[in-house]
Amino acid sequence: MSTNQIPYKIYLEESEMPRAWYNVRADMTNKPAPLLNPQTLKPVTEEALSHIFCRELARQELNDSDPYIPIPQPVWDFYRMYRPSPLVRAYCLEDRLGTPAHIYYKFEGNNTSGSHKLNSAIAQAYYAKEQGLRGVTTETGAGQWGTALSMACAYLELDCQVYMVKVSYEQKPFRREVMRTYGAKVTPSPSDTTQVGREILARFPGTGGSLGCAISEAVEAAGRQEGYRYVLGSVLNQVLLHQSVIGLETKAALDKYNITPDIIIGCAGGGSNLGGLISPFIGQKLRGELDCQIIAVEPASCPSLTRGSYVYDYCDTGRVCPLMKMYTLGSGFIPSANHAGGLRYHGMSSVVSQLYHDGLLEARSVEQTAVFQAATEFARVEGILPAPESSHAIRVAIDEALRCKETGQEKTIVFGLTGTGYFDMYAYQRFNDGHMTDAIPTDAEIAASLAQTPRVPE
Amino acid sequence: MSTNQIPYKIYLEESEMPRAWYNVRADMTNKPAPLLNPQTLKPVTEEALSHIFCRELARQELNDSDPYIPIPQPVWDFYRMYRPSPLVRAYCLEDRLGTPAHIYYKFEGNNTSGSHKLNSAIAQAYYAKEQGLRGVTTETGAGQWGTALSMACAYLELDCQVYMVKVSYEQKPFRREVMRTYGAKVTPSPSDTTQVGREILARFPGTGGSLGCAISEAVEAAGRQEGYRYVLGSVLNQVLLHQSVIGLETKAALDKYNITPDIIIGCAGGGSNLGGLISPFIGQKLRGELDCQIIAVEPASCPSLTRGSYVYDYCDTGRVCPLMKMYTLGSGFIPSANHAGGLRYHGMSSVVSQLYHDGLLEARSVEQTAVFQAATEFARVEGILPAPESSHAIRVAIDEALRCKETGQEKTIVFGLTGTGYFDMYAYQRFNDGHMTDAIPTDAEIAASLAQTPRVPE
Repeated sequence: MSTNQIPYKIYLEESEMPRAWYNVRADMTNKPAPLLNPQTLKPVTEEALSHIFCRELARQELNDSDPYIPIPQPVWDFYRMYRPSPLVRAYCLEDRLGTPAHIYYKFEGNNTSGSHKLNSAIAQAYYAKEQGLRGVTTETGAGQWGTALSMACAYLELDCQVYMVKVSYEQKPFRREVMRTYGAKVTPSPSDTTQVGREILARFPGTGGSLGCAISEAVEAAGRQEGYRYVLGSVLNQVLLHQSVIGLETKAALDKYNITPDIIIGCAGGGSNLGGLISPFIGQKLRGELDCQIIAVEPASCPSLTRGSYVYDYCDTGRVCPLMKMYTLGSGFIPSANHAGGLRYHGMSSVVSQLYHDGLLEARSVEQTAVFQAATEFARVEGILPAPESSHAIRVAIDEALRCKETGQEKTIVFGLTGTGYFDMYAYQRFNDGHMTDAIPTDAEIAASLAQTPRVPE
Repeated sequence: MSTNQIPYKIYLEESEMPRAWYNVRADMTNKPAPLLNPQTLKPVTEEALSHIFCRELARQELNDSDPYIPIPQPVWDFYRMYRPSPLVRAYCLEDRLGTPAHIYYKFEGNNTSGSHKLNSAIAQAYYAKEQGLRGVTTETGAGQWGTALSMACAYLELDCQVYMVKVSYEQKPFRREVMRTYGAKVTPSPSDTTQVGREILARFPGTGGSLGCAISEAVEAAGRQEGYRYVLGSVLNQVLLHQSVIGLETKAALDKYNITPDIIIGCAGGGSNLGGLISPFIGQKLRGELDCQIIAVEPASCPSLTRGSYVYDYCDTGRVCPLMKMYTLGSGFIPSANHAGGLRYHGMSSVVSQLYHDGLLEARSVEQTAVFQAATEFARVEGILPAPESSHAIRVAIDEALRCKETGQEKTIVFGLTGTGYFDMYAYQRFNDGHMTDAIPTDAEIAASLAQTPRVPE
């Protein structure tokens, strides 16, 4: 393999890094449905959104016409500290599988946040700082987003308040400690620091919390404090926009070596990494320039694309956020307690939802024991210990590579390796000890949860 | 800063990666003193060493004449998975400090082992595999070395048995779990699986163990099993040889931009990272081609260079290994219980010791609260959460940069950022909570420990 012309890691030069984010919505034939005010059921205005998000982010959230948004110089400078991320040729994995497929992965884990989340965290923190705000509030589940935001805020000297899903706060004390090291204030959610938190605690004493609940608390906390806004690490259009840097770099690296992908694979929770990775390729597909299979991989325990409904739903448990049309399992849906890692949000980015609805990508759900098998196999030959979330994409990449072995097809498979699993060793331990199980919700459970979605006339 | 010609990260091309390790001993005027057989006090032979290490490594250990040893192709291929590592210009740290100094760091933490240890682990595992061995045994303290060796062995499908210092085994369950994920068998040391372990347990029931004790157990375990050899992650000449890849890449990156270092700084425990980083520059100094200050930084709680003696000493508690002439605190020395992180070995690489003795480098000891202050400051502006060990080098780099601020000198400072602190959050937590203290051994404690060194006629 040492004589192959394509290096193990394709690094762009600093000068080749994207100078603008790509806004795939501008090129979509069917735009994502607008956010609705939950009271009036009318589309929310930029003015209304500006009370939740900072002004520029509210603008980006609603902008479905400009295909490119320049990356501000200070954000680009921060990107230079950990980007460009490598596009890695998985030579060793190919050898081990004995597949004729060529496998590449875009590795976003080589930064302290351990994931791609930093790409949007620095952008959101920057716009908050630029608007003269004092700080931001957010929620975090598995902890990657909270860590990323803490890092961005430390860099810009902005206050950072994180509501961390309680079960995660307790199981991952070291994630919490990383955030504290970056100066963030971390509160287990639900907490008694907000009205919505107190109500949930009263109704469900002893609850371990959920992302939807932590979102409600963070939004309330931002609204209550002068000079604060709420920020969110996934799902939103603005987040997919910032994450397009993943896809743009991936495409630039492939183009440099004249490689055309046959299959692009990404894990999907809220959809930000997937949306970011695929957006330039979706743009090509929409323009008829590329014929390529795109696969969103989700956990069988939280299967919003493969088993949810495409309807308007609440984004949070407290129902304080705008309504979003998306593939959803219902805002009350909580994955089984044995589900490890992230990808546990009940809904899906409205961009990804619309693209899926229009047949521009397909979706597949995988069970977590199979995911951890793939993670371990990958770690042992490629060196990197992957995050459980990323390992969903690895699972399907390996499955597709093995299919190529059967058919003899020399397909080019590209997948997103969104992060590392260094703070997920509790889950790995369960797997290593043989204690990990799968948990798939019943149709009745999903139907009951979906029955709680709001009624919005078409 | 965005217009500066030197990028944030200098990456070599794959084709620019070193093809041979540099053996600084070949160029040293005063060679390191030979290893001695503890019974006969005669220099150990390659034959005798081959019962402990695999043959090629025994050869490398004693080779002080060949300046370059080719890197075997399979090792080089493995290096390609995570190397070259970036030489980073610390623009943000410079800005924050307001220093005219130019600060660079060679970052070795972008791999799952989280440190430079992988550079030697893959080499040692490769030679074991090539010799047809079944497996290797080793010790690990903070856990980086054990993790690195586990990764290398998983890649080469070699059995890996790790004796982990018990206090670390208990405080760092997740480090242990990473090793298990890579298929290693991890045993807390002292254990009842070895004679030496049983003796130590009998004498000191409830002991948390030490590196010296874990080394003895690993050596015994290797000797007892057919097809096994012992491997060590620091101190030895062979390890410094493999780690020269750090210095060679650093020099190549600096040369690429015509940068001449004024100060090179590395943390020093057993001396492998420091020795590897500085060796090509020491070579230049020895040839009169470079006038540059080189600083070894050690913890004030384990100050082998600054307060130890340059004598022959035991390398391990069980006294089963050859004697080594080195700066040592005595093989019974154990840092105070409140000492965080690695850099807790009682002695120092004989190469580094001889270079220090000959005035080719200087040494400085720093206290751990000051180290964690530097670590936190660095993390917040440069993004990367550093390992406690690496942060010793950061402390002195910042001190020197601040001195430049006073004097107005535009010095070029290069330091080794050996790894990340993701598995050291327990120590960060103590610091964040204000519970971290310094602990400096008294002269009497060091003298008592040094009184136990063996008597070797000059």
